[in-house]
Amino acid sequence: MIYFDNAATSRTKPEVVYEAYNFYLREIGTSPGRGSYTLAIQASRMLYQARKNIASFFNIADPSNVIFTKNSTEAINLFFYGFLKQDSHVLISPYEHNAVLRPLQNLKNNGIIDYTVLPEDVIYNSSLLKNYVRSNTKVIALTLASNLTGQIVFSSQLAEEAKKYGITVFVDSSQGAGKKLVDIDRDKVDFLAFTGHKDLYAVPGVGGLVGRESFRINPLIQGGTGIHGESYVNPDAYPDSYEAGTLNMPAIWSLKTSIEYIEKNINEIISKENFLTDYFISKLSQISNVIIYNLNKKRVSTFSFNVIGIKSSDVVSFLSKKDICVRGGIHCAIKAHETINTVKTGAVRVSLNYLNTIQEIDTFISAVKELTECI
Amino acid sequence: MIYFDNAATSRTKPEVVYEAYNFYLREIGTSPGRGSYTLAIQASRMLYQARKNIASFFNIADPSNVIFTKNSTEAINLFFYGFLKQDSHVLISPYEHNAVLRPLQNLKNNGIIDYTVLPEDVIYNSSLLKNYVRSNTKVIALTLASNLTGQIVFSSQLAEEAKKYGITVFVDSSQGAGKKLVDIDRDKVDFLAFTGHKDLYAVPGVGGLVGRESFRINPLIQGGTGIHGESYVNPDAYPDSYEAGTLNMPAIWSLKTSIEYIEKNINEIISKENFLTDYFISKLSQISNVIIYNLNKKRVSTFSFNVIGIKSSDVVSFLSKKDICVRGGIHCAIKAHETINTVKTGAVRVSLNYLNTIQEIDTFISAVKELTECI
Repeated sequence: MIYFDNAATSRTKPEVVYEAYNFYLREIGTSPGRGSYTLAIQASRMLYQARKNIASFFNIADPSNVIFTKNSTEAINLFFYGFLKQDSHVLISPYEHNAVLRPLQNLKNNGIIDYTVLPEDVIYNSSLLKNYVRSNTKVIALTLASNLTGQIVFSSQLAEEAKKYGITVFVDSSQGAGKKLVDIDRDKVDFLAFTGHKDLYAVPGVGGLVGRESFRINPLIQGGTGIHGESYVNPDAYPDSYEAGTLNMPAIWSLKTSIEYIEKNINEIISKENFLTDYFISKLSQISNVIIYNLNKKRVSTFSFNVIGIKSSDVVSFLSKKDICVRGGIHCAIKAHETINTVKTGAVRVSLNYLNTIQEIDTFISAVKELTECI
Repeated sequence: MIYFDNAATSRTKPEVVYEAYNFYLREIGTSPGRGSYTLAIQASRMLYQARKNIASFFNIADPSNVIFTKNSTEAINLFFYGFLKQDSHVLISPYEHNAVLRPLQNLKNNGIIDYTVLPEDVIYNSSLLKNYVRSNTKVIALTLASNLTGQIVFSSQLAEEAKKYGITVFVDSSQGAGKKLVDIDRDKVDFLAFTGHKDLYAVPGVGGLVGRESFRINPLIQGGTGIHGESYVNPDAYPDSYEAGTLNMPAIWSLKTSIEYIEKNINEIISKENFLTDYFISKLSQISNVIIYNLNKKRVSTFSFNVIGIKSSDVVSFLSKKDICVRGGIHCAIKAHETINTVKTGAVRVSLNYLNTIQEIDTFISAVKELTECI
């Protein structure tokens, strides 16, 4: 089987990640902050250690600014619902995923906020931003990389420009978190959401919201926090107040371990992925009737294409029969499809990671050639 | 090590549960509803199969009334925030966990609802309920069993009585879900929240909200749903609309497997737990200066006690040195502590499961005797 759907989830994790998950589950198995016996205290220490590693990975000084959620979608919802006040205005890139678009549209439908989708040229020319800033613009939300085209959307220039207007910079790093494309401290990013199971190579079930500085927003979920059980609402204790309910500690421990793996291997991972992506695109772009979208943008190891005259879902089915896994249709990012004009056709997305090979790419290229020759 | 903190989490899972988790993670590894290639379709089928098993376990006809969340806290928040409208009134038992109390208090603080904590006698005499019903009473929330005293709080009599007033019955089964104490269909429970990692023996990171009949409430989290990616908010498609973001499928698959394990072994599990609990309580109650709370109530395998003259945290520390894991202090259920008058002292909670042994209990009893003899 050839797996080119890494933007959905990285299917194969480093062996140390599986081991870390199983170690926590079988050998520790308790919840942090839920007792004072030895194993419960050890759980709390491991939670702190995980926060520390993740803070360091994103270059955040204080580990208590790392909030664990079940995935990036929850983290993004926590941020928007918790941070935005009545009559706020939000700017978003045209490449935002539904995890960003839908909470904002819901807040808009409820008469709480308004938002503006920036046109693509603003992404690459930050001086144009001023034309979209309103007196009540509170947040700019930028995906680190597009889940559709793979292009890198966040830039420190854009963040810097937004800062001039006192706008809070929020980055959705669901795509690209593992590539060290953003330095929260250097780039003055205020908040960043991440998910564990994609290019951070953790098991599913853990993500988070991190803040450059300590922050106080409304929790998304109210409930047991282990500490201050006597308080009638989540206590004024952070980050615990944002993490009501039992944490998925084995997954958090897998994330701590996967981040150590990435830190150790980042150069090899990135150079392999860049090499494979360049090779793939150069081969695919030589096939006639193939359109690759936003070909010349700086990107992560993801891109989308279509074969003229064939529906994206038919391309996916054809490839699936050859045991090649890619995704077609609409990729949970309707604004991105509007931007690259593929709302009607959908698009075939290819997303690689460092475990893919040249041989797999060659097999894919042959399959697409075979398909185009049938037209 | 002697582990008597099963109400926090069941530390040891059946071997088939670990295997199911690892099978999904390593062999399937893809997300349901996120593609049309073979493994993605298989993921969707497995998700449906898990829903089916869980629906059957709780005796619900339609699997699409099973919503997966990260834990019961999220499920309870989803229900209250999604279901309750402006000016609703809610009745709760005096044994509700903070996962129920805190979202309600938060809704009350925001001027949306009001709630009344029922006195204990209503729990055991449903005819008294009428004294607390208001014209705007929409929901009665009952924990299946108290996480503090272990007593069974939900009863079909109470549910039936509430139904007379058109009140929606909500059960928090975080404690007791694995014991088949509630039959959603027979008992006419409308909604039930559960968590996987306690007495359902799944790995952490999965819980859910189930409804007897199909329901439409506001989603707690907006984001990518895999289907209808073109919609600007979560689509009118259920249960997907409540499950935005990547699901924790390995954990869901572990839950499907753990529920099969329970179905197969439920008689042995329950008779063993009842035997151990009775034995434990009978031995402990013979020690002078020990108070066991709500001794004569029907219960799950959990109870709380104090040693007169010793702080609960000191009892826990003493036992911890003997490698016995129990929890002291306030157990995320302040109303329950008010009810049994242990707000100041806290309480030592013992929670067993079928893996515990008579020998472990005897060791515990000896330790408590040693402690009381020091007073």
